[in-house]
Amino acid sequence: MKRILLTISYDGTAYHGWQVQPNGITVQQVLQDALEKILGVRPDVTGCSRTDAGVHAREFCCHLDCEEKFPDEAFLSGVNSFLPDDIAVVDCKTVSPDFHARYAAKGKTYVYNILNSKRKDPFLSRYSWRIERPLDIGKMNSFCEKIVGKHDFYTFSSSGRTVTDTVRTVSECYVKREGEMVSLYITGDGFLYNMVRIVTGTAVAVSDGKINPEDTEKILSSHKRELAGMTAPAAGLVLQKVYY
Amino acid sequence: MKRILLTISYDGTAYHGWQVQPNGITVQQVLQDALEKILGVRPDVTGCSRTDAGVHAREFCCHLDCEEKFPDEAFLSGVNSFLPDDIAVVDCKTVSPDFHARYAAKGKTYVYNILNSKRKDPFLSRYSWRIERPLDIGKMNSFCEKIVGKHDFYTFSSSGRTVTDTVRTVSECYVKREGEMVSLYITGDGFLYNMVRIVTGTAVAVSDGKINPEDTEKILSSHKRELAGMTAPAAGLVLQKVYY
Repeated sequence: MKRILLTISYDGTAYHGWQVQPNGITVQQVLQDALEKILGVRPDVTGCSRTDAGVHAREFCCHLDCEEKFPDEAFLSGVNSFLPDDIAVVDCKTVSPDFHARYAAKGKTYVYNILNSKRKDPFLSRYSWRIERPLDIGKMNSFCEKIVGKHDFYTFSSSGRTVTDTVRTVSECYVKREGEMVSLYITGDGFLYNMVRIVTGTAVAVSDGKINPEDTEKILSSHKRELAGMTAPAAGLVLQKVYY
Repeated sequence: MKRILLTISYDGTAYHGWQVQPNGITVQQVLQDALEKILGVRPDVTGCSRTDAGVHAREFCCHLDCEEKFPDEAFLSGVNSFLPDDIAVVDCKTVSPDFHARYAAKGKTYVYNILNSKRKDPFLSRYSWRIERPLDIGKMNSFCEKIVGKHDFYTFSSSGRTVTDTVRTVSECYVKREGEMVSLYITGDGFLYNMVRIVTGTAVAVSDGKINPEDTEKILSSHKRELAGMTAPAAGLVLQKVYY
């Protein structure tokens, strides 16, 4: 047996997130279906994280074990031909047998895309949150700077969280405008349930003058979810990169 | 009564083209549903052209008549709120009562997008035809130059055509590469059924060395569909602009 690290990319619009679950079709399930056709047996595939329903991944990593006889290339061309258009295997390599896609991940970068426009765009609606009112990038960045560092992000997570340790280190967080697209980039060693979406919703609340960025520390230590901003919609979120 | 010219934009993936038809949901039907909610009566909406199933429009024009009391702005904000995310009204203005979205159109620009990449991209599959082998832009353009002008484009249309006069004037046709995206731009006074998709398929056949661009005139005058290239898939095609 050998362990394979697969890098996949997907448009999450049609899926109930990564993880197999009873209520809807998931990326993991569709990927396992395709792998089964190549491998002859249904593999267990372990992902680097869960992603929510409707969230996208430019790069999502997962591992599985298979017999030595399957060349790495079989995963790229073979599995892709059994996957729908909205999921692609983009890289594949053999890793050591004790490699773990989730535990070995040193960090991740997410991007949240906001279409800051009065104009509805049918080609971007799957991939962004549209906000008509002007966004103040300077204000948003004054909030983003404050969450960089090691903090207890309990306030910035939803009640569905599955962990008890809510301390995470954010190494980079900033907002950038390119034309009408305002993107929030965030890199950290790990992220709580809905954390990037709540960080984004809070950055928007800061832009709107509803939250003072000087209160960020107080909000973090409050453990009161209602003091942070709304959970931004899933469509705008992309898992951009996983670091090992 | 007054006549309204609506400019809409749509991701055509989910639709069986523009025109209402019995076998599937169409853009016209969904737009009329939304308009009915605003106007109180179901309007007849006349489009600038038919588009095929799966084809997109950055800009598609259509006209309808309504009572004077509805301000133009009602179409922008009101109708948009009743339309799904993949269709948007982007402009609206009152025109003269004898304006006709189809007959008044002086020309149109279509863009056909080819993703020239070995790598499957789930974010571009809805909007492009992926070709793995290298494309020769120079060769493709030597064909494109030959179809500019007034020609009988019968050879470059499918059997579903509804017109008898198959002469059209193409004022511009060229291919441009930007990174992995190869786009064919074509502007003309009118287009036959599947014409842009067959022009694109032929440009690709020229790139592949299967058709000699020097034979273009012969192919045009042959009236033999099989001498042209394949009909490129619908997903890559976008109606970019309509000229009045």
